[in-house]
Amino acid sequence: MSELSPYLRSVAQQIDGMIDRNFNQIPGELNRASAHLLNAGGKRLRPAVVLLSAEAVRHGSTPDIMPAALALEVTHTFTLIHDDIMDDDSLRRGVPTVHTKWDMPTGILAGDVLYARAFEFISQAKAGEAAKVKATALLARACADICEGQYMDMAFEHRTDVTEKEYMEMVEKKTGVLYAAAAAIGGTLAGGNDKQVEALYRFGLNTGIAFQIQDDFIDLLTPPEKSGKDQGSDLREGKQTLIMITARKKGVDLMKYRRELSPADIAAAIKELTDSGVLDDVKNKARALVLDSNRLLSILPPSKERQLLMDVGEFFVTRST
Amino acid sequence: MSELSPYLRSVAQQIDGMIDRNFNQIPGELNRASAHLLNAGGKRLRPAVVLLSAEAVRHGSTPDIMPAALALEVTHTFTLIHDDIMDDDSLRRGVPTVHTKWDMPTGILAGDVLYARAFEFISQAKAGEAAKVKATALLARACADICEGQYMDMAFEHRTDVTEKEYMEMVEKKTGVLYAAAAAIGGTLAGGNDKQVEALYRFGLNTGIAFQIQDDFIDLLTPPEKSGKDQGSDLREGKQTLIMITARKKGVDLMKYRRELSPADIAAAIKELTDSGVLDDVKNKARALVLDSNRLLSILPPSKERQLLMDVGEFFVTRST
Repeated sequence: MSELSPYLRSVAQQIDGMIDRNFNQIPGELNRASAHLLNAGGKRLRPAVVLLSAEAVRHGSTPDIMPAALALEVTHTFTLIHDDIMDDDSLRRGVPTVHTKWDMPTGILAGDVLYARAFEFISQAKAGEAAKVKATALLARACADICEGQYMDMAFEHRTDVTEKEYMEMVEKKTGVLYAAAAAIGGTLAGGNDKQVEALYRFGLNTGIAFQIQDDFIDLLTPPEKSGKDQGSDLREGKQTLIMITARKKGVDLMKYRRELSPADIAAAIKELTDSGVLDDVKNKARALVLDSNRLLSILPPSKERQLLMDVGEFFVTRST
Repeated sequence: MSELSPYLRSVAQQIDGMIDRNFNQIPGELNRASAHLLNAGGKRLRPAVVLLSAEAVRHGSTPDIMPAALALEVTHTFTLIHDDIMDDDSLRRGVPTVHTKWDMPTGILAGDVLYARAFEFISQAKAGEAAKVKATALLARACADICEGQYMDMAFEHRTDVTEKEYMEMVEKKTGVLYAAAAAIGGTLAGGNDKQVEALYRFGLNTGIAFQIQDDFIDLLTPPEKSGKDQGSDLREGKQTLIMITARKKGVDLMKYRRELSPADIAAAIKELTDSGVLDDVKNKARALVLDSNRLLSILPPSKERQLLMDVGEFFVTRST
């Protein structure tokens, strides 16, 4: 894993430079609103998956597909801007959300601008024309699925009986498909064959789901001084996470934690979930997804980039922030 | 012009059939919300411009680009759904707007789904791969411009000193560019050369602007029983239209009509605007745009479809609803 961190830093640096040239140097208030969250940082994981997937397929001779890598970050950011409006969240990545700093109409438009720019960037990648059409279709399908995932997520807020199957479908759409599209777009633009692209797609889907499951672990386990977020907010809100659903299946009642929680309460919940095997169960599911992902990648030739992709999956389920 | 009406009816019928297959037969509440305004009718003018432009370039042997024609209608509809949220309008095409019938989050997502589907449809057109990449870039650029146009339009609501230049830029972006993209996408997908595509783009841009100017005429002149809308609402709201801006330049004060208006008041305003030459001035501008558009089309070989495109421009500035 030691090579992943410098690689991710290098990708983030390149993406930041492109954001600067393509957004910050464009005048106008609407463009400023569009660029706001792009400039608030982030690990640029989706661009890294695009680039690694491309390089894993065509080792060493990948043409310039940085615009497509940027497209994935831009797409992700558009969904954040619109989600923040729907959920009326006021903070994101430590800065005010777009509709809070500007207003709701500007937030809708800022997201819509990024949406358009994402497809524009895909069309600017240096790659075969047929591959770019496929990449466009992949990104478009992912965007439609993400909307469906967000719609399901909002509907779950009013329920306490979400099944594991429903939860997995929601997470697959809300988080999995964009990683899937990132990997498949990278592979497609680099000239990968159908089997390789399919394997990359499923790799991205699985690791994206595992990423989301890990997020729920972080919410429960990571102290606020490390995560920068409230610890145990999912418990407090009675959110239908895989932890909550698995607990219910095992007869552990987490709804009693749907209230203000002291650090001692959170510790008690963690102990209960550990003793009942809920956390192990959920952890094993995330790990199984990553193992499965890595097996999928075995159809690609061995390379440093293939290994880094596997490291991305490993990172997704071991990170604590 | 006698052949245009049956042609438009035939296009509308085909588009309606595609909407049925691609939206109404897809399950789920979010898809129903996305399909809602698509099903509320409309003249399907943008799809007609796509198809006519394609046929005018490659007469008689155009492959199946109906998905691209549908993409333009879907794009237009996504902008309506989001605009209705921003303007908090409750009625559109005689039906409740999406965010009124469902809610604001569903409205945002329903628009976002259409946005994705539009790019998906472009990728499904039967055409050369390079042409489809160009079409994707054209549509993406148009979408970004439309956002900018809507942003300007909203900003104008708080001003009474909008210049003609600013107004024309806003209308070009808000309405012109999507007609421009429609024409250029049709021409591109049919294998038109750069000069032809450029001419079609500018044709669409000009006629789109003329279309919007005519909309302002309709608001003033068409009785409500014919238009289905309040007559004189632009006057009442002090909206910065080309009529308003031209009146100001000619020293005609329309701000005195910024209040409840009786039919007699509206008749008085019309008389004042007629006598002062404002209406003639504005009408001439719209007509000049259409004349210019038709001259641009002269680089295309004469054909029934080229004539129908010219008829579309003529229709845009003569229609009364």
